[in-house]
Formats: sequence, structure tokens, C-alpha cells
Amino acid sequence: MDAAFAEAETAAMRGEVPIGAVVVRDGIIIGSGGNRTRELNDPTAHAEVLAIREACSREMSERLPGADLYVTLEPCPMCAAAISFARIRRLYFGAADEKGGAVVSGARLYNLPTCHHAPEVYSGFGEVRSAEMLKAFFKEKR
Amino acid sequence: MDAAFAEAETAAMRGEVPIGAVVVRDGIIIGSGGNRTRELNDPTAHAEVLAIREACSREMSERLPGADLYVTLEPCPMCAAAISFARIRRLYFGAADEKGGAVVSGARLYNLPTCHHAPEVYSGFGEVRSAEMLKAFFKEKR
Repeated sequence: MDAAFAEAETAAMRGEVPIGAVVVRDGIIIGSGGNRTRELNDPTAHAEVLAIREACSREMSERLPGADLYVTLEPCPMCAAAISFARIRRLYFGAADEKGGAVVSGARLYNLPTCHHAPEVYSGFGEVRSAEMLKAFFKEKR
Repeated sequence: MDAAFAEAETAAMRGEVPIGAVVVRDGIIIGSGGNRTRELNDPTAHAEVLAIREACSREMSERLPGADLYVTLEPCPMCAAAISFARIRRLYFGAADEKGGAVVSGARLYNLPTCHHAPEVYSGFGEVRSAEMLKAFFKEKR
């Protein structure tokens, strides 16, 4: 989770929304990312998507069974679905996101009967730190 | 929609699930894509995501206001959210996808009160052709 926070911090320094993610297998980080939607002009360049794409590229597979994903904020519907498609084993996230989340908030995608693969979900890791980072970022923007 | 079907057909020829998408602005295609999840080892390489990434890259913007997206199948939650993030104006899709869709099926993301931007949705364009292509593809795979 510390590595995910480090990614979030560098994202903030780049002027991006401070969210970071890492994909871990057997204790080794195989993918990491912080938001880069502005830098890359890519609305899909969320931290989780970038971390998953890196891990998949490294493992030359579109699926990552047995790998876990750590992210500082509850994933949005796009990222929650990408996590499912990648067959991530466990999802650990920091703060819940009532407005944009889709795991324990909003669409709760993993609870739908049509969800093919749902990771085990663990939350509340560094949630205060995660929420404070986002608050500080958006306060500065306004 | 014909261009989206052409993308779906070439996706099938590559051994990918036959779904195609194009992004159009003022009658000009500014992004197009067919599924490439296997080829690219990327679970996020759905037709809609690739078409949006190309259009955003071309316009050097993470948002595409005034642009429309045509896709042969109802978007999944990942793609439906990406379409919302990209501020796509109108979404035209072929067949509905009861199992995997998230627009008129499943999570119905655009109907959630937390959805920031919902495109206008039009469906049923070539739905028989779209569904037949998918059926033929999965029949051959089995």
C-alpha cells in the first residue's frame, strides 16, 4: 500500500488527481501507476488501468490470476471492470468513493449476478491519508 | 455503423471477439478500433477504449465533447464509464448484451445518480448482424 501511495504522490506532483495503484504477485510489484489522464490525453489512464496494463504486458497475458491490486481509492466502474477482466485475486483499497466508486458504492459491480469474476475485497487501508490527499489536491485546484 | 461492423469483422479475423467501434465528429471518423485484448495482452483493449484512445490522442484532449461513438454491442461497465469520462455526446450501439452490458443491462451506469455525464443512447442498429457475428464466433471457438 505504501507503493500505491508513492504513486499517488507523484501523480499529484504531475498535476494529476492523486490516486496510485500497484499490482503485486508473490510479494513482487509487477505493475504500478498513478493517474495520467491529462499527461497522456487519455480518459482511461487511471492508476489501476495503467498498473494492470503494465503487469499484463510484463507477463504477456491478458489475465493475472493470483495477482493482487492495491489502490489508494475505491475503483470507479471502468477500473472495477478492468480488475475483474484481469482476474485479479484480491483488491485492497484505501478510502471508499461514494461519488465515483463502483465496488462498495454506486453500481457495486462485483455484487451483480452477471459479474464473471469478483476479487476478494479489503478496504480501509490508509483511508484517511488517501482522502486527505484528494481533499488537499482539489482544494488547491479551486 | 458500417465502419464499426468492418472493425468487428477484422477483429474476428484476428481471432478476437468480434466487436468494433468508431468515434465520429462532424461526419468524420476520428478514432476506430476492434477488440485486441489477446493480441495486445491487455484486458482493457476493448473496441470502444481503443477508439476513444485514438480519438483523444488525435485531438490531444482527454475529452471529446460533440463526438459520437458507434459500437456493434452494448458497452460493458469499463467501456460505458470510459465513454462517460470522454464526454461522448451520443452513443449508438447494435445488440444489447444482457450478460455483459452496463447501459440498458446490468448496472445501467448512466441511470445512476452519481453519473457525471451520460451520453444520449440509441440502440438496435444492426442488432441481428451484431448478435449473429458473436454467435458464429463463439460457436466456432467451442
